[in-house]
Amino acid sequence: MKRIKIKELLSHSDKYIDQQVTLKGWVRTKRGNKHVAFVALNDGSTINTIQIVLDIARFSEEQLKDVTTGACISVTGKLVGSQGAGQSVEVQGDQLEVIGVADPETYPLQKKGHSLEFLREIAHLRPRTNTFSCVLRLRHAMAFAVHKFFNEKGFVYVHTPIITGSDAEGAGAMFQVTTLDLKNPARTKEGEVDFSKDFFGKATNLTVSGQLEGELAAMALGEVYTFGPTFRAENSNTTRHLAEFWMIEPEMAFYEIQDNMDLAEEFLKYLVQYALGNCIDDLNFLNEMYDKELIERLKSVVETPFVRLSYTEAVDILVKTTQKFEYKVE
Amino acid sequence: MKRIKIKELLSHSDKYIDQQVTLKGWVRTKRGNKHVAFVALNDGSTINTIQIVLDIARFSEEQLKDVTTGACISVTGKLVGSQGAGQSVEVQGDQLEVIGVADPETYPLQKKGHSLEFLREIAHLRPRTNTFSCVLRLRHAMAFAVHKFFNEKGFVYVHTPIITGSDAEGAGAMFQVTTLDLKNPARTKEGEVDFSKDFFGKATNLTVSGQLEGELAAMALGEVYTFGPTFRAENSNTTRHLAEFWMIEPEMAFYEIQDNMDLAEEFLKYLVQYALGNCIDDLNFLNEMYDKELIERLKSVVETPFVRLSYTEAVDILVKTTQKFEYKVE
Repeated sequence: MKRIKIKELLSHSDKYIDQQVTLKGWVRTKRGNKHVAFVALNDGSTINTIQIVLDIARFSEEQLKDVTTGACISVTGKLVGSQGAGQSVEVQGDQLEVIGVADPETYPLQKKGHSLEFLREIAHLRPRTNTFSCVLRLRHAMAFAVHKFFNEKGFVYVHTPIITGSDAEGAGAMFQVTTLDLKNPARTKEGEVDFSKDFFGKATNLTVSGQLEGELAAMALGEVYTFGPTFRAENSNTTRHLAEFWMIEPEMAFYEIQDNMDLAEEFLKYLVQYALGNCIDDLNFLNEMYDKELIERLKSVVETPFVRLSYTEAVDILVKTTQKFEYKVE
Repeated sequence: MKRIKIKELLSHSDKYIDQQVTLKGWVRTKRGNKHVAFVALNDGSTINTIQIVLDIARFSEEQLKDVTTGACISVTGKLVGSQGAGQSVEVQGDQLEVIGVADPETYPLQKKGHSLEFLREIAHLRPRTNTFSCVLRLRHAMAFAVHKFFNEKGFVYVHTPIITGSDAEGAGAMFQVTTLDLKNPARTKEGEVDFSKDFFGKATNLTVSGQLEGELAAMALGEVYTFGPTFRAENSNTTRHLAEFWMIEPEMAFYEIQDNMDLAEEFLKYLVQYALGNCIDDLNFLNEMYDKELIERLKSVVETPFVRLSYTEAVDILVKTTQKFEYKVE
């Protein structure tokens, strides 16, 4: 029987009600009593789980004992209305297959909440948590919305080089890229590293920006954007520093400052609106768990015209605040 | 006056006919006589140029002499039906502004065709040629179609690491990434390079594949794909080898071999159909200039069901051909 995704099932439950469905996913929790087990199943298509009701008499003890948090299972059964709190529909399991087990003694993701620091130590399992699956689905939606926005405007997506011989911004520390033997690199007569023997015949680094190549493309195609990985080798372990991150850089010919500001405002509002329109379940979770004002703030971004002011006006505002600054504003 | 893109103007010329329009772009050619100049203008939105007709009496000699191949200009004038061969509409220039000049003595892209080898030496100007602008617009369209296809199917786009401590495929030569001083790297007591002093505290390379991380995400989100740069440090200068290229890797939980084949076939047909539907002007140019069977072949990909056969059947077919192979098939 063809698998149905939980997102599809929950969004169109009236279409599937009283029908046999097959679901495949990972067990979030199992609870119950001597007669019946309730399994919360998630398949990553949505943050929501669906409740699977297993009549214990119908399944072997052997099978049921493997249905633990983290186990991968396939269930076929009828979708019915649910009496339980927290869900409108549930599946009465007829057939159960355990595809992969998760030993409760060693599987690190259990029912309780886990700190982000702990999850960092088990990065391979993070996508199975509510928080990271939310973030990954949102990140996907935002990446898609970026491409959709620019495509609709006739921008051309350019893949600018990752390995580069130039230092686009002249500042940030860069990662060196080399195929030289690090233990005994080729040397010139003077004892310097001989980059003419390196892969590209010169010293190369990981790019800090696609701007240079983006500008060249814009001078031919009109409006372009980059969206790819960039790198910084600054050794600062703060929450605002990343060694590797994906950056979006639009470059446009014939734009004046007003056009640039219009584009930036329209872009940001488009992305936030897209998230509100397509990822509300994930946003609700983050709003509930991490930031009670998240959705309210996102809505205000969409609804409020962005203030535009001159440098002088901005300085005036800063001078008048009671806020303390490290460097005096003047 | 707000600039109109040439693609928009040519696609909806009936909407703009007899109206004043402003166009901005780069001069491809200028020809004419003592009374009138005909300028072919391109702005990168399409491979097509629009003809600008300049009544020489209306402009200064100073201005007109700067309107040369490669110059960047802005023109405002009326869109009218054209008597000339090769275009249905043209613009009667009223106002002309030369935004950037291109000295005919030194500007390397002239009216004549240029070899790809020559263009490689002036990579910063390549996007201004018909061939490269076609390829860049097509590449954009294909990248967008990749995202659109997977998004519609509920796949999650994951950005897998570029800098990695693992060698995903155990084979291909890799680029080393380091912040160690290449001239005098930190060394252990034994004289080996001391990677514990490197940025990540260990030896790192540029990824050859996002598959490993993609599989981990698929085991939580169900269906995911990667689409990012990957690297190979093999020193082989062939047309089939790239040191840096963007790779698409779908990873799906719960798929059987038949599902994988269905996905691959649907994906390829979707992309080719998207190109035929959205990039036909660019494909026509490539068909004309590089490969007279291109469009025919693309159509056959969309229209023909892909043959699926077993390994044994494939060997049988190869054994029966008269084709010579380097390694005998058996």
